[in-house]
Amino acid sequence: MNVESEVKLDIELAAGYLKMPQSRVQGLLNKRLLLQNWDDYQHLFRFDKNISKIEHGSVLYQKDGSFELIRGFPKIQRAMLLGSAINDHFSKIGSVVVEEKMNGYNVRVAGIDGRIAAITRGGLVCPYSTERAEYLIKPDFFTDHPDLILFGEMAGPDNPYVPKDIYGIESLEFFVFDIRHKGSGKPYPVYERRKLAEEYGFTQVRLFGEFPTSHAADEIAEIIRELGKIRHEGVVIKDPQMVLHPIKYTCSQSNCADLRHAFRYYNDYGRDYFFSRVVREGFQSVEWDENESELQKRCLQLGESILHPMVDSIRQIKDGKRISDDVQIRVRDIAVASRFEEYLRRLGVDAVFEAPQQVGDEYLVKIRKLNQSTNDKTESMCKGELW
Amino acid sequence: MNVESEVKLDIELAAGYLKMPQSRVQGLLNKRLLLQNWDDYQHLFRFDKNISKIEHGSVLYQKDGSFELIRGFPKIQRAMLLGSAINDHFSKIGSVVVEEKMNGYNVRVAGIDGRIAAITRGGLVCPYSTERAEYLIKPDFFTDHPDLILFGEMAGPDNPYVPKDIYGIESLEFFVFDIRHKGSGKPYPVYERRKLAEEYGFTQVRLFGEFPTSHAADEIAEIIRELGKIRHEGVVIKDPQMVLHPIKYTCSQSNCADLRHAFRYYNDYGRDYFFSRVVREGFQSVEWDENESELQKRCLQLGESILHPMVDSIRQIKDGKRISDDVQIRVRDIAVASRFEEYLRRLGVDAVFEAPQQVGDEYLVKIRKLNQSTNDKTESMCKGELW
Repeated sequence: MNVESEVKLDIELAAGYLKMPQSRVQGLLNKRLLLQNWDDYQHLFRFDKNISKIEHGSVLYQKDGSFELIRGFPKIQRAMLLGSAINDHFSKIGSVVVEEKMNGYNVRVAGIDGRIAAITRGGLVCPYSTERAEYLIKPDFFTDHPDLILFGEMAGPDNPYVPKDIYGIESLEFFVFDIRHKGSGKPYPVYERRKLAEEYGFTQVRLFGEFPTSHAADEIAEIIRELGKIRHEGVVIKDPQMVLHPIKYTCSQSNCADLRHAFRYYNDYGRDYFFSRVVREGFQSVEWDENESELQKRCLQLGESILHPMVDSIRQIKDGKRISDDVQIRVRDIAVASRFEEYLRRLGVDAVFEAPQQVGDEYLVKIRKLNQSTNDKTESMCKGELW
Repeated sequence: MNVESEVKLDIELAAGYLKMPQSRVQGLLNKRLLLQNWDDYQHLFRFDKNISKIEHGSVLYQKDGSFELIRGFPKIQRAMLLGSAINDHFSKIGSVVVEEKMNGYNVRVAGIDGRIAAITRGGLVCPYSTERAEYLIKPDFFTDHPDLILFGEMAGPDNPYVPKDIYGIESLEFFVFDIRHKGSGKPYPVYERRKLAEEYGFTQVRLFGEFPTSHAADEIAEIIRELGKIRHEGVVIKDPQMVLHPIKYTCSQSNCADLRHAFRYYNDYGRDYFFSRVVREGFQSVEWDENESELQKRCLQLGESILHPMVDSIRQIKDGKRISDDVQIRVRDIAVASRFEEYLRRLGVDAVFEAPQQVGDEYLVKIRKLNQSTNDKTESMCKGELW
């Protein structure tokens, strides 16, 4: 790890670029709120928290005697009651655009030093996502627009974080949902962004349409019910001009799917993760004015989403098995799998990589993520330890 | 509040009594880990955390040129799988005693300076509990045994924390479950304690019997199912000699009742409160080897315990009402109600006391506890604010 300290941040120059006192930049480094990336990307420094107006996950690096800044994903707030939230939040504009919120993981793809880099939400360059991005995105976009960053969702079954087979994707696709400028983070208006993405042949998130603000909630409720049926996640509601911040709303089925996954590894997830999803169910039931029998159905679904996976895990561990979260990646260059293994290890994820299987001109690598905390806690309870 | 500082702790003497360096005692005072009580009890200092081997809620006070220490409630750990826990924890003894765990609030009753004081779990002298204790407990116990402390549960409908009408009690009773020595905290063996309590006519928690350790789990499972049917909370399993620590186990119905209450005030409770109760349901289902239809029933019960109260609260607040947790106390001296109001205010509980109603020779005072966080959060969501 000492190798990392070889690349030093030019504090004077960085402070000038960020318009911060040098002491503040030095303080961020000391407190490890501004952290170096690894390997080939040691010269990228990521913000590990929101600092002034710079989002968590933003990435700073030296470029031609100055700096460039790749802003993080802006936090998208959630509507709990769709109608009230749309009326309140978008009251000043006549219509809103609705796009699909996909269930995968967020990645920014940028051109850095003439190469494509896929940067995770936290500001790390992910070797697996980078290889996928190199394969999926024509580099001419970044040659033509060195100042732009693609914000999108990596989704599909070959997804080491949130594998989903609901999108009819064979491996992993990158769905663009935002294009923003380096430095300012200024977004493209929705239609300009979609046009530009289309010109370069990018896959994009689905556009459901533009609806007058006054009755958007009803239209969106309908979309949400339909998306729920096909187990999709939800929607993001946007100001077409991207001046007002977007807001999000998700399907009950997606909340429950999250709970099912999380309760299988009940001791590895944060308590807030469970709580927030449960509360969403309460608000949706009220907004949809559910009758006794509809509410009853929702109660059963919620209870099942919590207890079934937990009971399955406890039973398995009681029977002497260890549980794991089984995912897979698909790489073109076998070395990328090793780099990804090292990457997960550095992130503290306990994962076992199986031997690569050749599939066409690619390699499929199955990964067992061991949820140590759930395994250990359950095992100790089964041995009679007390909580 | 400045009045409180009038009583000073004799640090040199306290350090000698506690066998701690003076600097440590001073440090505890500075960090507010050793805190003064209020009003008539300013000379009682409570430990606000576990400090060395002294439990959180322990109370220290000066007595005849030295000190006395009233030890806090020892934490009783929970069996998640009853069979495994009993086998493991009580393997060295031939039998265990099972007593009822009641649903009320913990109070220690002690004689301090010739008066009865009821001390809460946190180490505060509660004026309401003290009046109830004075009424319920003959003072001759403390004259005969100045060195002993009664540990028990205040339970019944006139309970400002956990009102329950399941015990057939008219107002509030004090159920003794432990008798311990001042200073050491050494407990009486179970049967000696019950005998002593009986001699003084104290109400005691129910004794279910003594069972051979080898098949206690089956007996207790049966007791738990029966207690669940009458909505009682659960059991505490004890070494008859009180050498090994007791352990506890609760009924599913009690977990669900807790959840129903907590989800009515969903934003006022800690996330861990929800989580722990949900996880208990998973372990019990596995231990009881439930089939599909039993598990289904448990899922529905769990879902209903979560969603029904939350949906009710959201609906009410959406309709412009404020929700409150309505409890009541019954006092003999009307001044105690005022002292209790001030006590809750100091604890940061937002409560509205209604005018006392005379009932026989006592006064019933209805109290509306306002759960501000749930009210405010829900109201803001209904206005369209984002989460």
